Amino acid sequence: MKELIQRKRDGAELSSDEIEYWIQGVADGSVPDYQSAALLMAITIRGMTRAETIALTEAMLHSGRTLDWSKLGRPTVDKHSTGGVGDKVSLALAPWVAACGAAVPMIAGRGLGHTGGTLDKLEAIPGFRVKIDPEAFQSQLQKIGVVIAGQSDDLAPADRELYALRDVTATVESVPLIVSSILSKKFASGAGAVVFDVKCGGGAFMRSREEALALARELVSTARELGRKARALLTDMAQPLGDAIGNANEAAEAFGMLRGGAPSDLTELTRDLGTAMLVLCGVARERFEGAARMDRALESGEALRRAEALVEAQGGDPRVVADPTLLPRAAVESLALSQRSGSVTGIDARALGELLVAMGGGRRRKEDAIDPAVGIRLLRKIGDRVEAGEPVAVIEAHRDAPEWADAALRAYAIGDEPPAPRQLVLEQIME
Amino acid sequence: MKELIQRKRDGAELSSDEIEYWIQGVADGSVPDYQSAALLMAITIRGMTRAETIALTEAMLHSGRTLDWSKLGRPTVDKHSTGGVGDKVSLALAPWVAACGAAVPMIAGRGLGHTGGTLDKLEAIPGFRVKIDPEAFQSQLQKIGVVIAGQSDDLAPADRELYALRDVTATVESVPLIVSSILSKKFASGAGAVVFDVKCGGGAFMRSREEALALARELVSTARELGRKARALLTDMAQPLGDAIGNANEAAEAFGMLRGGAPSDLTELTRDLGTAMLVLCGVARERFEGAARMDRALESGEALRRAEALVEAQGGDPRVVADPTLLPRAAVESLALSQRSGSVTGIDARALGELLVAMGGGRRRKEDAIDPAVGIRLLRKIGDRVEAGEPVAVIEAHRDAPEWADAALRAYAIGDEPPAPRQLVLEQIME
Repeated sequence: MKELIQRKRDGAELSSDEIEYWIQGVADGSVPDYQSAALLMAITIRGMTRAETIALTEAMLHSGRTLDWSKLGRPTVDKHSTGGVGDKVSLALAPWVAACGAAVPMIAGRGLGHTGGTLDKLEAIPGFRVKIDPEAFQSQLQKIGVVIAGQSDDLAPADRELYALRDVTATVESVPLIVSSILSKKFASGAGAVVFDVKCGGGAFMRSREEALALARELVSTARELGRKARALLTDMAQPLGDAIGNANEAAEAFGMLRGGAPSDLTELTRDLGTAMLVLCGVARERFEGAARMDRALESGEALRRAEALVEAQGGDPRVVADPTLLPRAAVESLALSQRSGSVTGIDARALGELLVAMGGGRRRKEDAIDPAVGIRLLRKIGDRVEAGEPVAVIEAHRDAPEWADAALRAYAIGDEPPAPRQLVLEQIME
Repeated sequence: MKELIQRKRDGAELSSDEIEYWIQGVADGSVPDYQSAALLMAITIRGMTRAETIALTEAMLHSGRTLDWSKLGRPTVDKHSTGGVGDKVSLALAPWVAACGAAVPMIAGRGLGHTGGTLDKLEAIPGFRVKIDPEAFQSQLQKIGVVIAGQSDDLAPADRELYALRDVTATVESVPLIVSSILSKKFASGAGAVVFDVKCGGGAFMRSREEALALARELVSTARELGRKARALLTDMAQPLGDAIGNANEAAEAFGMLRGGAPSDLTELTRDLGTAMLVLCGVARERFEGAARMDRALESGEALRRAEALVEAQGGDPRVVADPTLLPRAAVESLALSQRSGSVTGIDARALGELLVAMGGGRRRKEDAIDPAVGIRLLRKIGDRVEAGEPVAVIEAHRDAPEWADAALRAYAIGDEPPAPRQLVLEQIME
């Protein structure tokens, strides 16, 4: 192990046997954390070749159980987002795509720091279970075509160990480590095709478009070299997605989409991702057919019913999908009032994500509990006009909280002229 | 801590407050090993500025107790070698320099891998104690002017933690980490002046002269910026020092020097180091006076008596100094017989160091026990003539061991012509 670390430290390319040896040692606990930490840092600084990234992905993928849906009789497809503020897409997208005829065995994560997590948003639904044992997973997928669950202990266990270690050793940002982590998890859960939503901008992990594009390309081409179908949408995270930031309020907004009543940016992105998923897994031949299927599933109410079936199958009250007032909600509203008239020119998504953490709706450390009822509601988005004294955002908390309203206001930039309109989907990376 | 790791990962210079924060956390256990491992790797790859190295040295130096000999009434001086094969200098040098009027509070180390350690060689003397409590250390230094002891738990504890971690994370080779480790230990033990023996060549840690010179310069100038007296001798380790490799046999050879009967390379280097120590700590005004004092202490028998006093003070039988047959010695000799006539052109010191480990005389891992009685005796050194069928080396083991004799023979290169004579002390670095 020491020689292996040394070789990467000096910039050498590791063989697939060496990478396999390391990852097996991570999985069975024989390689101590401090050796992995040193190697992760060497990888972060020295980088990895494509061959190394592929070997690392394969080793992590096979470090535990892998699921196989080849006998399901339906194509499987998943979506992965690199995370942002207000990104509640998965809650609606997974049942919506299932309603179109694909199966969606989705492994989702929790929020940390300024970004939220799908599992936390789902757990805002009283009774909802995100831990699903393999038999229940299989029968639910067979029956309703959609599961959203946490990564079980036996799926890519080496990735889980390394992910926790990267988080505390400043080695999260390495592209090969990100790519192998995402792909090993996704492919261990048996999805035959994956669409990546790679976000860039102030509220995203990758701030610049160039970095995000590099990650998107690496994800798609590594997945393809592993024999899987993949494509990526490069999407804008210059401001939060949709109007709700929180857990229960984001779940409500996501389900609102399935009733036709959600902010247009959120609906547009979700529909584009679903269309790409349907085409990629072969349910639709091309994107116009995919989009038409998505629209039909929405209009027919089939997407809504599938979401209700999902919530019910995982122990929640299915009525929350049609009636968001059944979700918890902090009752005391504090308004962030604009001090000037003008147009919103920017919204600091990261600052709002961090504000939610301060309000108790997010986590500073993994072991923190979160309060699903608190949230931030944006009344104005970039390009919107506001008059002095009008609110731009509402804090929903358990007490009057002018300091949080002030913090929300500080996240807004208001200028004289509206900015040029922005595109939400910046690019589609097919290979 | 995470941001600190991140900054070094990205090549930034850490402030002395940041370094102090890390080292305090290492000393009190609040910074976990894996974070230190990641930071050590980032330091190894990115390097450290002079200011960072000084801050790191100071932080480690003050992470525990520091000894103060200012009231001793004699100047204190120490020597540090970067380690090599057959380097038994300290055993004779410390009492010899003490016999000249300086006080030598020497903190020594153990062997690991192919290099030996002073403490292991001293422990070949039955009863010899290397753990000395602070009160006994002080009274012994006062009384006989010399102590050779292990690093006690309370001296530079952060260095001890980091050293163990570096050993298993391929971060041993970093010059700033080496410099701060050596200096913090040496200065915590209260030596007012230190002479460094920086070795280069096949048997040394630094193989090339350039690397060794860079380390020597960094040691001397960092020490001086910390307000301490320091100089370094750059010395050749192309072959083992002296003729004995082992523990008891090296102790015997070292004490033989004090009776005037030791290989000339060993005696020459020890005398040069002692001379530099006497000048540096002010006992001698310049090197001719220093050398004359060294010679006088040897001829008068004062150096020998001081070595006996040292052994006795630390629980050993003082008669071993005059009579090496009292030391343990493996009785079965196997000869490494030259297959050709010619001149010795090279001796692979590292291979011989590793052979000693294989024979049980060294450690693969820290927790290994060693056998002080086994050893290798070199009958020929570089430049010596040998005839076919004559022995070049002798294995001393507990059984007949032709395979070890073969291994010793393979460490010898024998050619037609003797090589050009080599210098042992290559350079003296004064600042």
